[in-house]
Parts: sequence; C-alpha cells; structure tokens
Amino acid sequence: MEKKEVLVLRDILGTNKKIAAGIREKLRTKGILSVNLMSSPGSGKTTLLESLAGRLQGRFRMAVIEGDIETERDAERIRQKGVPAWQITTGGACHLEAKMVARLVPSSPAETEFLFIENVGNLVCPASYDLGERLRCVLLSAPEGDDKPKKYPKAFATADCLIITKSDLFPYLPFDLEKAGTEALDINPRLLIFVTSALKGRGIAELARYFIESRVNMIQHQRHA
Amino acid sequence: MEKKEVLVLRDILGTNKKIAAGIREKLRTKGILSVNLMSSPGSGKTTLLESLAGRLQGRFRMAVIEGDIETERDAERIRQKGVPAWQITTGGACHLEAKMVARLVPSSPAETEFLFIENVGNLVCPASYDLGERLRCVLLSAPEGDDKPKKYPKAFATADCLIITKSDLFPYLPFDLEKAGTEALDINPRLLIFVTSALKGRGIAELARYFIESRVNMIQHQRHA
Repeated sequence: MEKKEVLVLRDILGTNKKIAAGIREKLRTKGILSVNLMSSPGSGKTTLLESLAGRLQGRFRMAVIEGDIETERDAERIRQKGVPAWQITTGGACHLEAKMVARLVPSSPAETEFLFIENVGNLVCPASYDLGERLRCVLLSAPEGDDKPKKYPKAFATADCLIITKSDLFPYLPFDLEKAGTEALDINPRLLIFVTSALKGRGIAELARYFIESRVNMIQHQRHA
Repeated sequence: MEKKEVLVLRDILGTNKKIAAGIREKLRTKGILSVNLMSSPGSGKTTLLESLAGRLQGRFRMAVIEGDIETERDAERIRQKGVPAWQITTGGACHLEAKMVARLVPSSPAETEFLFIENVGNLVCPASYDLGERLRCVLLSAPEGDDKPKKYPKAFATADCLIITKSDLFPYLPFDLEKAGTEALDINPRLLIFVTSALKGRGIAELARYFIESRVNMIQHQRHA
C-alpha cells in the first residue's frame, strides 16, 4: 500500500474505533447485547436470524440492523418475523462502519435485549471495523469449504464464535468439519464453535442460549463493576 | 466517503487502469486470452480451474495466477494438474490490482494460450479493479442463493459471463435458477450464462468452448485491425 493510503486508512480506523466504543458503552448501559455477524455472501446470515427470531421472540425482544450494498430485501425478511429491522444500504461500500450503526442506535426500542448487526456479505473487509458489538460471530457455510479459515484469517482471528451453517448439506459435500474447526482454532483458540442448520433447526437452541448467557454475564459484570 | 478518501481512491483506480491497459495489450499481441474470475469465497473458482485444466490441457496451454489473502494452497492445487501457477498473497488486501499481475505477466511461458487470474474471494471489491483481462467472469454458487445479483450488482454489471457453479446441489437447495438468471440479466443484458458442476463435469465443455472461441475472435480481430 502507498504511504498516503496507509495514513488515510489509519485515520478512518481510528475514528471508527472511537465511535464504536461509544456505541458499546451506550448499549451496555441499556442492557442490550449487540452481535456483529460477518461472513461471505450467501452463508446464511439472514436465514440464521430468522431462525433465531423464532427461538428468542416471546421471551426476549430483538432488533436487527441489516447491512447490504443494495436492496432492502433482508430487512423485509426480518420484519416478516415480527422483528424490528433497519436496512443500511452502503451503495457500493464493502463493509459497515460504526458511524452508520451509530445513527440507528437511538431508534432501537428501549426494551430491546438483543441487537443483531448483519454485516455486508464479505469475509475480508468487515473484519477491520469494530461496530460497537459485544460479540463478533463469523459464519462459515459448509459449501464454502473447510479450507477457508487460513485463507481469510482476520475474520476468524477477531471473532468470539464461529457458526458453521448449512450442516444439512454435509452428506452432499466434500466438507471436513474437524479440519475446518481445527484450522479456525489454530488461528483463534478462544473461538466457540456452533454447528447449525437454520433450515432444519439444528444448533439454533444452543446458539440462542449462548447469546442469552452472554447478556446475563454482561449485566452481572456491569453490576459488579 | 470523506473527500480525501475519494481523492486517494480516484488516484489508485486511475493508475490501476493504465497498468491494466498495458497488460491487456501485451497479452493480446502474444495471443494469450486472459480471464479474470471473481466470486465470493468458496464459490468454486479453484475447482472450476482444475476441471477446465482437464478439458484444455493436451490441446492448449494454460497458466494460472492465484490471488489469496494468505496461503499458497490454490496454486499448489493447480500445479498438481500440471498447469503452471503463481500465487499472489495480498497479506490482507481484499482484491488483486493490475500492478500485482503486471509483475508476473513476463514470467508466463511464451506458448501460453490462456491465462486465468483467480481473484481474491470477495464479491465486492475486485469488481472495481481492471486486471488487464480480456474476459471477466463472475461465479455464483447455487448454495449462495438466487438473490445475490441485485445485492452485489457491480460484479454482475461488469462481467462478460456468469458461471453458476455447484449445480449438483440444486436438488437440496431452495435455489431458483430462472430467478438468479433473470436478475443477473436485468443488471447486465449482455451476460452469457453457464450452468456448471465441476465435480460432476457439467457445463465445463461449453465453458471451455467459449474461452477457445473468444481467443479465436481476439486473434482474428487483431489480424483485421
């Protein structure tokens, strides 16, 4: 990279970090657990959120921020599940930034307990941008292949959990779950790994429980702080 | 985007375009057809190239430039098919640029007829960078979903052909081929569409024929110019 590119990028990331810290603090004091979902296009982020809505709604309130380059489609899918959703269309940009999220955070209903942020489908660029999330989850769909963690390491290195999606396709694919998991843990030994199929409902209860427990921890930590 | 970001980006794209034009001209005079393959991570670019190698080798010589953020894995897979391959690891950058390709072009064997450039797995950023290719192909794997063209329009808008991959998974997926094709053609009516399964060998002969005919056209056009 040229020197002037490096300087501009450093500026952008520095500003982003400050805004993200503000979002995180604001959400924490409101008792809202925020989750940043990152993955390649078509790994199943929206379908996973639809499935989580089925698990969480009734007991908890969730809200969703949808990031896409174009179209309002994903937000519409989420709203059909009775979940408030805001669409950010980046108009070309390959990732969400904290300032885009900051504009929407005041609109989230006061009684929200979970705020999911679905990033732009891109396994590379979003990994560099903190969105003020409490948890960062990277999705890897089985058809993408078990060799992806080492080829796209930053998303895996910076995540709290890895969600393997579309496990219903295992029988039809050359996908080695152990290899994918081992590679991801080599990069980031503290990763929690969930194996899911949103279409078949596999692993969704375990994932919902992880989010619920993470929120309890966040609130307890706050009380004792 | 901030004004200074816009100016830096304009600089980068302007320089890239000039280098790309030089590469295109050099390859054309050598009778080498260059193809830029773009897609999400795990759409099957390398597996498609392995399959094309099986079709083209013996009758034609091909060479491959592999772009990845990390690892030499893809180049090694291609070399095992007896095809010369060079790996570019971008070390974090989300796309290839013409200057990276320009360094390798003089090394390609003189008798090469096809130079395939496999871009970094990313359906967003690579679309903005001309690599000096004669043909640009975007891959969409069936498991990614039929709604991707309108969500990631630039890759489809700038491509010459759309290669639907992993069609062997059609029976297990909610993928509507007609919808995907119609959406892509709405964005870019001149797109040629190929439906393939590299694992089952479906559509590979048609794709190889397209590349062979495109090279013949390039050479004839040159003679008459």
